[in-house]
Amino acid sequence: MHELTVELGARSYPIFIGEGLFSSTELYEKMMGSSKLMIVTDTNIEQLYLADLLRSLEDFQVFVHVIKAGEVYKNLDTLNTVITAMLTSKISRSDCLIAFGGGVVGDLTGFAAACFQRGINFIQVPTTLLAQVDSSVGGKTAVNHKLGKNMIGAFHQPIGVISDVSILASLPEREFSAGMAEVIKYGLIRDKDFFEWLESNIDKLLMKSSVELAYAIEKSCLNKAAVVSEDEKENGIRAILNLGHTFGHAIETGLNYQTWLHGEAVGMGMVMAAYMSVEMGWLSESDLERTLILINKAGLPIKLSAECKEFNMRELMSIDKKVSHGKLKLILLKNIGSAVITEDFDEQILNNTIKHFYGMTE
Amino acid sequence: MHELTVELGARSYPIFIGEGLFSSTELYEKMMGSSKLMIVTDTNIEQLYLADLLRSLEDFQVFVHVIKAGEVYKNLDTLNTVITAMLTSKISRSDCLIAFGGGVVGDLTGFAAACFQRGINFIQVPTTLLAQVDSSVGGKTAVNHKLGKNMIGAFHQPIGVISDVSILASLPEREFSAGMAEVIKYGLIRDKDFFEWLESNIDKLLMKSSVELAYAIEKSCLNKAAVVSEDEKENGIRAILNLGHTFGHAIETGLNYQTWLHGEAVGMGMVMAAYMSVEMGWLSESDLERTLILINKAGLPIKLSAECKEFNMRELMSIDKKVSHGKLKLILLKNIGSAVITEDFDEQILNNTIKHFYGMTE
Repeated sequence: MHELTVELGARSYPIFIGEGLFSSTELYEKMMGSSKLMIVTDTNIEQLYLADLLRSLEDFQVFVHVIKAGEVYKNLDTLNTVITAMLTSKISRSDCLIAFGGGVVGDLTGFAAACFQRGINFIQVPTTLLAQVDSSVGGKTAVNHKLGKNMIGAFHQPIGVISDVSILASLPEREFSAGMAEVIKYGLIRDKDFFEWLESNIDKLLMKSSVELAYAIEKSCLNKAAVVSEDEKENGIRAILNLGHTFGHAIETGLNYQTWLHGEAVGMGMVMAAYMSVEMGWLSESDLERTLILINKAGLPIKLSAECKEFNMRELMSIDKKVSHGKLKLILLKNIGSAVITEDFDEQILNNTIKHFYGMTE
Repeated sequence: MHELTVELGARSYPIFIGEGLFSSTELYEKMMGSSKLMIVTDTNIEQLYLADLLRSLEDFQVFVHVIKAGEVYKNLDTLNTVITAMLTSKISRSDCLIAFGGGVVGDLTGFAAACFQRGINFIQVPTTLLAQVDSSVGGKTAVNHKLGKNMIGAFHQPIGVISDVSILASLPEREFSAGMAEVIKYGLIRDKDFFEWLESNIDKLLMKSSVELAYAIEKSCLNKAAVVSEDEKENGIRAILNLGHTFGHAIETGLNYQTWLHGEAVGMGMVMAAYMSVEMGWLSESDLERTLILINKAGLPIKLSAECKEFNMRELMSIDKKVSHGKLKLILLKNIGSAVITEDFDEQILNNTIKHFYGMTE
């Protein structure tokens, strides 16, 4: 088992990574200060793993709330059902939530924990690669609004995270690839060695080899934790974690959160950001090439779909959270392993980038 | 003009108290870092004062969102309309909200500011006495859930508060009295001198004399600010601010937030808490008497209404936020000017207290 700590002063918390951890009674006992808790999970995870989790929590007073699986349910209405369940079960400020699922369950449950009676504890047990390497670190919680993704949320740190690599065996291939987008992102923005390790080990990862998986998750979490510790509320450097996300969110919003998975949109967004970085005269052609190859090998799209022509990507990018004083901020690359946050780009280059990818849809 | 500062480190903010302040361009310019803002107000305040406020904000880029007046609209649905308006107006993280109204507008707008893109600035311009002495200090924001008041919320400090005493001239008498409940509360929990000043000046206050009003508001804010500075997130002493609120919330929830105003329910709750404090052998009969007289003089109910018999008050108290590890916490009085937070009370005394007041409904 790997254990690492996200350093955030009084809000520091541990992440446990390894095989067969999600049903370890010991880990829950270690983290939890309360004997009463509510598990929030979705219909998919309920079928596969809920019985095992409940068995490991026999000594606790446990309630369960199951939400429908899917990004379209990450909204205020579903949040309200969680709050209703909490109030009906008389969950109080001193009790605890467990988010048992992928990013949707994690973000929604985290936000429920953040705003229920102005804040209670929660534990993340992420069941997708994406959630293990991304949403479980950093305390960003949110639900979507019909006009934009993650528009309603809070910073709220979990009291602990359990990332079980065994659980990834049942993850559909597309979802696994979507998680790889964020893994590759850490290499691109701040860890060239890790990027090169990924180039060498991508095949083993795709075969879900436990040793390599645990290493990739740990490296991803360490990279993210280092950035988050430095800038918890995203006043500066933390924004580099959004490489590919401004383009990606526009794609997701334009497609109404359907068709493409978040990680797929982010992967595509990184391709577009890398292309634009070349156009800016920053990234080399060969680094762009390596980026495209790795993203492609990971099973992610590197071209837009025809549907994407039906919305105005530039327009959707302007409602992104990274707009400050009316100016759009983009995360671009100087090299593999080195990202910059910039408001200082030629609008024409951005438009040409979008046009370039609109011209090669499939 | 009185000016005081709520001391909260990096989140410290000023409160301005005086006549004719809400339309002072200078104060807004002093506080605001952004030129773009959205005013959230309700249908009542819109009619009376919005034009004046807009005139004082001519140099800003201003959007307005009007919600229906009333506690029943302080919910997730209305929050969603605020967020929709913000997104449609392209309000970004660096822009600002102005909460222009009473407690409902303040709590709802504050929560919108807390969770919109995980947090933006807001200014409070409270237009009721209750909001000026209570919800504008301390950063508690929330909306109601059908199973409980203020169940969904966040701690989010404003960047400044403007309390205009002139605006109270148009406040209905019942609402003014409701605000007096919180004013009297500060005397009861921690400021015997202020309680005695209130006994001497209650008539001038009821006539809305500016000098006395500004003094009472300043004293109330100073008392609240002192408690909040010590314990921002309510891990301890801040709970004393909830004197009367556990009983009061049960009344409000039982009556579905209709019939009684929040301040009226709190006033009644303080009467019940004071009575119970006597039963506990803590408060003297004569202090109870003085408390009843002042609350009554302020125009507040000191008896339950017959409708209150239609719900189980003890049951509703158990979903209060002040329940910890299954145990109800109550705020009771040792003396006028001295409150205690206790879990250590005889359940029978609580039940007798409720029974006593159920026996003398009118």
